[in-house]
Amino acid sequence: MSSPIIFYDLPSTLALNAWSPNTWKARYALNIKGVAYKTEWVEYPDIEALAKKIGAPATGAKADGSPLYTLPIINDPNTGKVVADSFLIAEYLDTTYPSGTTLFPPGTKPLMAALEAGVTGSIGSIFPHQLATSCYILNPSSEKYFRVTREAAYGKKIEEFSPAGAQRDADWAKAKEGLVAVDDWLSKNGGGKFVMGNTVTYADGILGAWLTWIKVTNGESSAAWKDFASWHGGRWGTYIINLQPFATVL
Amino acid sequence: MSSPIIFYDLPSTLALNAWSPNTWKARYALNIKGVAYKTEWVEYPDIEALAKKIGAPATGAKADGSPLYTLPIINDPNTGKVVADSFLIAEYLDTTYPSGTTLFPPGTKPLMAALEAGVTGSIGSIFPHQLATSCYILNPSSEKYFRVTREAAYGKKIEEFSPAGAQRDADWAKAKEGLVAVDDWLSKNGGGKFVMGNTVTYADGILGAWLTWIKVTNGESSAAWKDFASWHGGRWGTYIINLQPFATVL
Repeated sequence: MSSPIIFYDLPSTLALNAWSPNTWKARYALNIKGVAYKTEWVEYPDIEALAKKIGAPATGAKADGSPLYTLPIINDPNTGKVVADSFLIAEYLDTTYPSGTTLFPPGTKPLMAALEAGVTGSIGSIFPHQLATSCYILNPSSEKYFRVTREAAYGKKIEEFSPAGAQRDADWAKAKEGLVAVDDWLSKNGGGKFVMGNTVTYADGILGAWLTWIKVTNGESSAAWKDFASWHGGRWGTYIINLQPFATVL
Repeated sequence: MSSPIIFYDLPSTLALNAWSPNTWKARYALNIKGVAYKTEWVEYPDIEALAKKIGAPATGAKADGSPLYTLPIINDPNTGKVVADSFLIAEYLDTTYPSGTTLFPPGTKPLMAALEAGVTGSIGSIFPHQLATSCYILNPSSEKYFRVTREAAYGKKIEEFSPAGAQRDADWAKAKEGLVAVDDWLSKNGGGKFVMGNTVTYADGILGAWLTWIKVTNGESSAAWKDFASWHGGRWGTYIINLQPFATVL
């Protein structure tokens, strides 16, 4: 490849900028694959116009049935290909750049899709908290878009998604309980640093992205992340440290 | 190896005899691995005495905290090893018989554990129906044991677990909806016959066992199985046919 891939990601007010779990999956995939890329930051209200301009496909449908355009999107000037959706981006990278690190060892795509469902299911109870926390770190135009769409989906104000108190505490406790299973799955990897052992794969893009979302939106020094990172023998905190070489924001 | 592995399985009144999803996982593992084995059939009330006699470890705890012994168990006369639990049996087979078909391609154990959670979660709504259906095909001593333990767990008679009617219909509809995700995961395997593509692995022991349980306890010609087999473009019926070479009961 001669030119860096253009990676469209969602910005924030954080020093790190990157925060979205869905775009983090693609960013981890790019970093693990080891291809050259550069980030272009796109606020929520500007995604649709960008997607239409560069020919990115819709990834879903809005409530009214019209096409929904989402990040991550990559635009590869070396091939002219534009790809949306993190899983499809990872597949594209393996197909197009086979000499880089393999994201999907043979036959593992169905299993990694199962892993993602398992991981998101295990922490689903803290999604209301996470959505609120995410809203608070967005720039004004994205914050407005995010607030309107999420408040419509949940039927209440962002501030009411997960107010401090017994319900929020119960939600975190439920995530801790849900992650017991994920901890058990990872314990079968022979003690390696990554999901599949000592070989980094797209499975780490998946798990890494969801954990990174929790870490960066709450803040690395927050009580919430420090507590989370300590669960299950410190597995999650240690895991994110091990994955740090692939967490570069270029 | 010189002597067949002894595989302890739960019998039934079915012509096929084998029915339990947990022992089917180990049976598929033995068949896929391609090692010689013979089955010894053990009724539920006789498992504990057998396990203690041959030195099989407990796999859990009863409600009163005392050790719980379960099938599958294998006893390998070639090594003197006795192993309980289907996942541990599959791991043992890969370690001990590396020249046979690989059950776990490198690094896939955590992913297969995630797959199992995903599969069982997707069909969890029909477990009450399946437990009742299983009870009805057991021999008298196992039937009595199964009925007492399951009725205690659910707080009602087996006949009340899933009586024909709106709730049972809703339970099956929910399983069909749950399997949409599993169908999507499998669609990422490049169109192969097995979970990981055209290579059979322990992932097929997992998915195959749960589907086989539904097929054999309801009956291959039952309306319930015929309907189930037709879901999602006939994926489940076709899958079980593809897996038939590994479903031998020896």
